[in-house]
Amino acid sequence: MNVLIVYAHPEPTSFNGAMKDLAVATLTEGGHQVEVSDLYAMGWNAVAGPADTPGTDAPRFSLAREQTLAMEQGRIAADIAAEQEKLIRADMLILQFPIWWFGMPAILKGWADRVLARGFAYLPGRKYDTGMFKGKLAMVATTTGTSADTYAPDGIDGDILTVLWPVHNGLLRYTGFDVLPPHVAYMPGREDDATRARQLQAYRTRLQTIDQTPRLFFHPAGDYGPNERLKPGVLARSGQQRNV
Amino acid sequence: MNVLIVYAHPEPTSFNGAMKDLAVATLTEGGHQVEVSDLYAMGWNAVAGPADTPGTDAPRFSLAREQTLAMEQGRIAADIAAEQEKLIRADMLILQFPIWWFGMPAILKGWADRVLARGFAYLPGRKYDTGMFKGKLAMVATTTGTSADTYAPDGIDGDILTVLWPVHNGLLRYTGFDVLPPHVAYMPGREDDATRARQLQAYRTRLQTIDQTPRLFFHPAGDYGPNERLKPGVLARSGQQRNV
Repeated sequence: MNVLIVYAHPEPTSFNGAMKDLAVATLTEGGHQVEVSDLYAMGWNAVAGPADTPGTDAPRFSLAREQTLAMEQGRIAADIAAEQEKLIRADMLILQFPIWWFGMPAILKGWADRVLARGFAYLPGRKYDTGMFKGKLAMVATTTGTSADTYAPDGIDGDILTVLWPVHNGLLRYTGFDVLPPHVAYMPGREDDATRARQLQAYRTRLQTIDQTPRLFFHPAGDYGPNERLKPGVLARSGQQRNV
Repeated sequence: MNVLIVYAHPEPTSFNGAMKDLAVATLTEGGHQVEVSDLYAMGWNAVAGPADTPGTDAPRFSLAREQTLAMEQGRIAADIAAEQEKLIRADMLILQFPIWWFGMPAILKGWADRVLARGFAYLPGRKYDTGMFKGKLAMVATTTGTSADTYAPDGIDGDILTVLWPVHNGLLRYTGFDVLPPHVAYMPGREDDATRARQLQAYRTRLQTIDQTPRLFFHPAGDYGPNERLKPGVLARSGQQRNV
């Protein structure tokens, strides 16, 4: 596979940096090609705006409309186009980030806002089961500042799959990816070296067993009615719950 | 009340801009003081990093540690300190933004990452019921690109309260705010002028009835055990569900 790791942490010696380095080594050993977008090192611009779509004469800025036109006319900003090329090449996407305020650091959210442009990552009729990136695989690899208990279904921070729903269903499933369960290292910053080493080993094992790991469940398009709500009885029949 | 509106949209004539302007007018008419942080107009830096905490000699950058030290020693970056002063003055916070990729635009996420610094917005023992901003009120005011059906509990995008959980429970309740239900204008960009006018009127009414609007339910601290998971039986006894 060609694997793209989009990595967002300001400190190279962080646990997130170690997870990224380990993924590069493990996947390369496994015969995969790996590319890394190190957003802090790249000085990535996180803020979507008119500079993303130069060459328009629109009197007012609509992000969705300007992205669509710029993609059609081949004039999306060069830094965005370069990331889009990496995504096109990738069979698998790994988002490597620390959970800050229950989500991605702004620099990574801004990668999504800008790179996953309308006309590139979605269009009418091209979302979820018919998403643009159908056939590609994705995974979140992340760290937390608090314990696994706090992210349990009855934990005070909320189920980790609820916290990550905007990433899993939003960014990834929406654009057509199959999504692996997240690999979460819980509060490595408060653990001792032995525990941190075990956490890294667990990630290594995970990366070596991608094929055998069941994907997250999302209802297929046929389970939804014309109003994009689940058809009556679907939940009872499927016996499966969405991860919300 | 002193109300702080943190507003994130690149286009002043957008529907988000109209909601922000309407909030300023309506709240001012109601006798409140209103302050606006217009993040795009301010050229807000979204990316948390070492420049936020000048004057350290740490060999490696830990955001939480450096934020804590910088707050203790009064050397947090000036743009962050100015926003923190606004928050201290505010009795109510309104976050005004379009939902982009199931969450806040990166410029607003970066406001949270940087302004809600450790040592200012949270510390050990100071979160949720004992949060730093206890006694203050907060509300999300937002727009979507898709219909209300898609954000219904059985909608394909997921319950709007699940999508916003990282903001409601994460940013706001975590730091002690009481949280009003979100005011959501569903896909105003695809509606006609009459519908958009009705959507604005609904927001005006909402702003005039803040006192009468029930707050979102979150379990009080006493419902959680020492591991920060709900005590057995709490869900059945309370008859209330978390908004997840």
